[in-house]
Amino acid sequence: MLIDFDEIRLESGKTFGPVTIAYQTYGNLNKDKTNAILIFHALSGDANVAGWWGGVVGAGKAFDTDKYFIICANVLGGCMGSTGPSSLNPKTEKPYALLFPSITIKDMVIVQARLLDHLGIEAVYAVAGGSMGAMLSLQFSISFPDRAKKVIAIAGTAKTSAQNIAFNEVGRQAIMHDPNWQDGYYYGKALPNNGLAIARMIGHITYLSDKSMRNKFGRGMRDEGLKDRFTAPLFEVESYLRYKGLAFTERFDANSYLYLTRAIDLFNIEDEGEGSLQKAFAKTSARFLIIYFKSDWLFPEYQSLEIVDAIKNNFGSVSYRAIESNYGHDAFLLEIDQLTHTIRNYLGDGE
Amino acid sequence: MLIDFDEIRLESGKTFGPVTIAYQTYGNLNKDKTNAILIFHALSGDANVAGWWGGVVGAGKAFDTDKYFIICANVLGGCMGSTGPSSLNPKTEKPYALLFPSITIKDMVIVQARLLDHLGIEAVYAVAGGSMGAMLSLQFSISFPDRAKKVIAIAGTAKTSAQNIAFNEVGRQAIMHDPNWQDGYYYGKALPNNGLAIARMIGHITYLSDKSMRNKFGRGMRDEGLKDRFTAPLFEVESYLRYKGLAFTERFDANSYLYLTRAIDLFNIEDEGEGSLQKAFAKTSARFLIIYFKSDWLFPEYQSLEIVDAIKNNFGSVSYRAIESNYGHDAFLLEIDQLTHTIRNYLGDGE
Repeated sequence: MLIDFDEIRLESGKTFGPVTIAYQTYGNLNKDKTNAILIFHALSGDANVAGWWGGVVGAGKAFDTDKYFIICANVLGGCMGSTGPSSLNPKTEKPYALLFPSITIKDMVIVQARLLDHLGIEAVYAVAGGSMGAMLSLQFSISFPDRAKKVIAIAGTAKTSAQNIAFNEVGRQAIMHDPNWQDGYYYGKALPNNGLAIARMIGHITYLSDKSMRNKFGRGMRDEGLKDRFTAPLFEVESYLRYKGLAFTERFDANSYLYLTRAIDLFNIEDEGEGSLQKAFAKTSARFLIIYFKSDWLFPEYQSLEIVDAIKNNFGSVSYRAIESNYGHDAFLLEIDQLTHTIRNYLGDGE
Repeated sequence: MLIDFDEIRLESGKTFGPVTIAYQTYGNLNKDKTNAILIFHALSGDANVAGWWGGVVGAGKAFDTDKYFIICANVLGGCMGSTGPSSLNPKTEKPYALLFPSITIKDMVIVQARLLDHLGIEAVYAVAGGSMGAMLSLQFSISFPDRAKKVIAIAGTAKTSAQNIAFNEVGRQAIMHDPNWQDGYYYGKALPNNGLAIARMIGHITYLSDKSMRNKFGRGMRDEGLKDRFTAPLFEVESYLRYKGLAFTERFDANSYLYLTRAIDLFNIEDEGEGSLQKAFAKTSARFLIIYFKSDWLFPEYQSLEIVDAIKNNFGSVSYRAIESNYGHDAFLLEIDQLTHTIRNYLGDGE
């Protein structure tokens, strides 16, 4: 489904519009409108949460669509139905490209709060998300302290680290140095797919763990005869990354990658508390569940613990689970049994 | 200094030549020719070891040039004076480019053993190196079991992991997708510097640690006004990486990067023991010092411990030091005091 806004006010102070947001819902909203759960997707996700998170969203699953009204929207700046740099700029009748404004994680949640207004939902029972989705969950809880009872932040952080920014920047450089990028104005022409594929390959390495890569690929070789031919992949892991990179270019817009990774870079909940994470979380009385997967090195455990400590120091309510996994950051998409157990207990508690 | 060989026999079975090797020596070889130490450089290093490792190589330093005769050579396949893909192919009178043969870490040490022949040195007192230099040190000890009394392998591994290969591959993809790469035949024309810079940026992230990046850059911003301009670096860490990437292109050849990273990918000491690391190390009676730095995630500690265990299981002589450091993989270039203490003790022991 689509919802249109004439105009939104961005964190930068600029107004921007019109804005279309693509969203999907699952299950039924109860009479009191108290059973809604808003799920936020990660960098490359979309509104079809029953697709990309099908293991935990559905009838009888952790986010039980027999019980809850599940909402998921494509983020502002994305390329899966919501307004982003590839959308038509009504003023020029061409895609925005780099005329699209700089956006933040806060802008994304503000738009989704307006979607809740439209659905007549004053407060959701929970917000939830992994990776960038965890950032949106945390931001929502602070920007709208009375609009979410529970907050589930999985494989996330309260502020992006220098290392995260660095990986994002290398991906952006790969896109911007693709000659097809054309300063962002490539729509209707050849796409900067080589650059976008390289950005995605870097991403994938950071989503996996050293151990999961060892288990999955090891030093497996495709063909020893390829040793002196760089253009063909020699090792299994190379073949996998090239495939994943290429597949990504068929469904994602390179400029969206620039804007969304920049929004991730700029994410820092401390800004909501004058530089103090504790002060930032003092604004909300939501109950939190923070989940960390033990092999996630993109957002290491200290980043989850910082959130837990900040909430505890405010005498807030926070549950913390560090879940065993070899899958690295991607575990939030893969460790279905452990997530189901943890999320179901948490959502059921004190209903 | 330069030394020329008419021809060398490569691990692939092919013969290749002529080969020039650039090397430097420091200090004096004693009458018995028993005080030589052969140091191997890392991926981007060169023969000028007193330059890039000046903290540990020199008069009164860990590798004491008053006491030892230090030798360092640019590796085969490199671009700092030794024959590599940018060297002139005498048959075509043009640079080899991709006509340069596929090479391995073993090929590199075989050539350097021939340099020792030329210098009249039957056996060195020690071989030593960090990162790729550690790989060459280990390989030397097995390819030439009687030619090194001591082996110092720092921040290394006995076999490259899937994650290492993956990072190398993304760098290679960035180079090969640079339109200036021209299937490798770019010499005398515009160079694939954008791709090489991206490869180097990825490398730098893996050489640092999350903590060292936090300490050095944190979330420091250069100019908040740059938030919506992707082509200018916004965060300090972006600026640093761009600078490092660009600087690298002024001194390194993109095809050398392809060949050397591929040699690193192919490195697996188990191949010397029919798939068994223990069997491989059974071939040598050298004494080993294995050094690991605790924040090095590119070659994690289990990789150093695998080497230690394999040698121990052969009842071989091995010392192991896990050194505290926040510097990540780069610690082998930076933790001078701790390296000095450890190396000096080890070299002095049983002289």
